[in-house]
Amino acid sequence: MKAFILAVGDELISGAVADTDSSWLAGKLLEERGIRVEGIRVCGDALEEVRGALETCALGRDLLLVTGGLGPTEDDRVREALAAFFSVPLEADGEALERLKARIRERGIAWSESMARQVRVPKGFRPLANPVGQALGLEGRIGECRVFALPGVPSEMKAMFQAQVLPRIPYAGEHASFVLTAAGEPEALVGEKLRGLMEKKEPLVGVTAQAGVVRVRILARGDGAEARARAAAEEARRALGEAFAGFGALTLGDVVVRRLEERGLTLAVAESCTGGLLASTLVEVPGASRVFLGGFVAYANQAKEAWVGVPREVLESKGAVSREAALALARGAAQRAGADLGAGITGIAGPGGGVPGKPVGTVHLAWFFRGEEHHQACRFSGDRSDVRGAAVRRSLWGILDLLCRRSPERI
Amino acid sequence: MKAFILAVGDELISGAVADTDSSWLAGKLLEERGIRVEGIRVCGDALEEVRGALETCALGRDLLLVTGGLGPTEDDRVREALAAFFSVPLEADGEALERLKARIRERGIAWSESMARQVRVPKGFRPLANPVGQALGLEGRIGECRVFALPGVPSEMKAMFQAQVLPRIPYAGEHASFVLTAAGEPEALVGEKLRGLMEKKEPLVGVTAQAGVVRVRILARGDGAEARARAAAEEARRALGEAFAGFGALTLGDVVVRRLEERGLTLAVAESCTGGLLASTLVEVPGASRVFLGGFVAYANQAKEAWVGVPREVLESKGAVSREAALALARGAAQRAGADLGAGITGIAGPGGGVPGKPVGTVHLAWFFRGEEHHQACRFSGDRSDVRGAAVRRSLWGILDLLCRRSPERI
Repeated sequence: MKAFILAVGDELISGAVADTDSSWLAGKLLEERGIRVEGIRVCGDALEEVRGALETCALGRDLLLVTGGLGPTEDDRVREALAAFFSVPLEADGEALERLKARIRERGIAWSESMARQVRVPKGFRPLANPVGQALGLEGRIGECRVFALPGVPSEMKAMFQAQVLPRIPYAGEHASFVLTAAGEPEALVGEKLRGLMEKKEPLVGVTAQAGVVRVRILARGDGAEARARAAAEEARRALGEAFAGFGALTLGDVVVRRLEERGLTLAVAESCTGGLLASTLVEVPGASRVFLGGFVAYANQAKEAWVGVPREVLESKGAVSREAALALARGAAQRAGADLGAGITGIAGPGGGVPGKPVGTVHLAWFFRGEEHHQACRFSGDRSDVRGAAVRRSLWGILDLLCRRSPERI
Repeated sequence: MKAFILAVGDELISGAVADTDSSWLAGKLLEERGIRVEGIRVCGDALEEVRGALETCALGRDLLLVTGGLGPTEDDRVREALAAFFSVPLEADGEALERLKARIRERGIAWSESMARQVRVPKGFRPLANPVGQALGLEGRIGECRVFALPGVPSEMKAMFQAQVLPRIPYAGEHASFVLTAAGEPEALVGEKLRGLMEKKEPLVGVTAQAGVVRVRILARGDGAEARARAAAEEARRALGEAFAGFGALTLGDVVVRRLEERGLTLAVAESCTGGLLASTLVEVPGASRVFLGGFVAYANQAKEAWVGVPREVLESKGAVSREAALALARGAAQRAGADLGAGITGIAGPGGGVPGKPVGTVHLAWFFRGEEHHQACRFSGDRSDVRGAAVRRSLWGILDLLCRRSPERI
C-alpha cells in the first residue's frame, strides 16, 4: 500500500500555521493499519498549485489523504481543482445544503450563495458528512489512487477520518510498532546505547529528541512482526538502563507524574515567568490529580508575597528574579499545598525586562524536597516562548533528578 | 526565486512529531525576503528516500532549505544521501571535531567514533557552524539549486538560519505583506465580509481560523506592492468592523491583553481542569504583566477552598464541577488578586472522571466583572487536550464579550 498525504493551504506555506493534520493522519495510518506513508506534501491555495499537487501526489500511489481547501471562503479550492482536473461540474449536495441553510437561519445570518461552496461536490465524487462543522469531505479516485479529502480544521478532520475514512482503508499485512520513551539523557547518548539495534534494518529502530524526552520507535513488518518488535523493544529497554522511562510515547510530564506516583509523593508549584505552563504541562497528564495538588501563578510581586509567602525583603533586596525568590516560591508552594515536593520558577522571558546582570533568558529554578532546598540558575536563549518552554523542561528534569537522588545540576 | 522546503525524519511521517520547522522557515522567507515557497515536502530517514526527495525538491528550483537528518544517530542520513548523490566522500570538519571531542570529555562521556557523524561534511559542501548544538549544517548546490541543510532541532535550526542562511538569500523583488487578526466572529462570516477583496488575485488575500481567532493575510508583489497591500489592509479593516482585533498575527491571548489594557483593567484567574493553561496563554503575551496579576491552579479541592475561597458546602453539595464552583473560582480570583475581572474554569477534561449528568467534556466557565457574575455551561468534544484548549478559548471569548458589554453567551 503506497500512501501519501497532501495538505493544502496558503497559511501552511506562509508561516502562519504549522501543518499538524498530516502528522496526526500519518500516526493513525501507522498505528491503525500498519501503513507507513511515503511522504507529505504541502501546497498553497492557488487552483493550479492544488491541481498540480493532487496529480503528483496521486501518481503511482494507492491512497492519498488530502486536508484543507474545503472551507467556505474564496481561497478554499480543492473542490474546484478536482472538478477542473476531471472536467466535471460541481454540484451542491442537496441534503447538506438544506442543513446548512437551516443552521444559517438559526444563527440569524443572511443567506448568501457563496456559503454553499462548502457543500459542493465534483461529479463522480462522493460527499463525506461532517459531524462537527459545515464543510463536506470528498471521496473518489484519481486514476488508480483512492482519494479522501477532509477539511483542515483539526477537530473536523479527526472526527471525519475516524468515522468515515479509516473503516474504508484496509490493513497493510502483518505489522507491529512499539514506542519507548527515555528521559534524563541526551539524544546522542540514547542513540549510542541503541546503536546495535539501529544498524539492523528490520525491525526499523529510530530515535528522536522531543520536548525534554527521547522517543525510540520500533517498526516490524512481515511475518512474525509482533514477536520481532517485542523482542527489539525488550532489548532497547535493557540497553537504555536507568534512562528508560516507559513504553509508549510519554511526555516529560507523563514521566514526572509516573515517577511521583510510584514513590507516593505529591507536588505543588509556584511560577512567575512560565505563568502556569509548568502546572499545565503536569495537568495535561491524565490522572495527574493523584500527585499534583495545585499551583500558584504568582505573576505580580504582590501575588508572590500574599499567595506564596515570598518575603517582601527578598523581593526588595534581591528582586523577583533571584535565587532567594525562586527558593521561597518552591518552599511556599510545597508548604501551602501540603505537598512533598515544591518547584519554583522565576525569570525574565523577554523580549523586554532584561537589566544589567539579569539579561533576558535569565531564569532561577528551585526545588523544595524533604526539607532540603535546591537551586539552579540558567540562561536560556530564544524568544519568550522558547525561554518559557526551556524553563519548564529544566524544572521537570530537576524533579526527576531529585527522585533519583541526584542533584538537579547533573543534566 | 523558486524556493522549496524539505523536512527529513521518520518521526515526521510516523505521527510522532509534527513538522513545525518548515512553517517557521516559510514565514521567515516570506517576511524577510518576500519569497513565497512553492511548497513543503516531508520524507522519511531511509537513504534512498532522502536521496530521491533531495533530487525532486531541487529540480527546477533556485533554493532548497532542508531540515533534519543531520543528528548524531544512525538514522540521520542527509550527509550520506548528499555524498551518495554526488559520489563524493564524507570527511569530518577538523575544527568542529576538536570542539565536539572537548565537549564530550567535559561531560565525562567516553568518546566513540559514531559521535563524529554530526561533524562530517560531503566533499564540495561547506559546513555551517552550530552555536547551540553539535551537528553542523551544510551549504552547497544540487545542479542549479542552492541548498542549505540545517539540523531539525528547532532551537539549533532557528539560530543557524538567522545567522548564516538568511544573510545569503537575496530579496525577491518588491513585495509587501500584511496580516490582520479578527476575533469574535466565525471564519465563514469573516470570509463573507472580505469576499470582494478575496476575489481579486492581486493583492492575494487569504483567511484562516486559528486557535480562537481568524487571521487575514494580504500579499502584494511587484511595483507599488507596499501601497497596494496597505490599501487592501485598510479596506479589510473597514470591512471587518467590530471583528477587527488588530494588525499583525495576534493570538487570542494578545487580543484579550490589548483590550484589557485599552480599558485600564486588570485580570486574575482560577483554573481547575485547564490547570494553568489559561494563565499560560495570557503570560505568553509580552507585556501581559500590565493587565494580568496572577492565577490559581486550584486542582485539588483543598486548594479550591483554601486558596480561592470556594465554600466547602458548594464542593460537597454541588461538586467541584458546577456552576456554583465556577462562580466562586472567578469571584475568588478577582478578589484575592484585587483585579477588576476574574475568570474561573472547572470541568472534566477526561479521559476518566465522567459521571452520570456530568460526562467527560463538561466544563463550567464563569466570569466576575464589576460585581456581576456570568456563567456558561459547555460540553466540549475531543480528547483531554482538546477539551482543555476549547475551555481556555471559550473563557477568553467570554472576557472579550464582557468588555464589549455583550453577554458571554453570544458566541
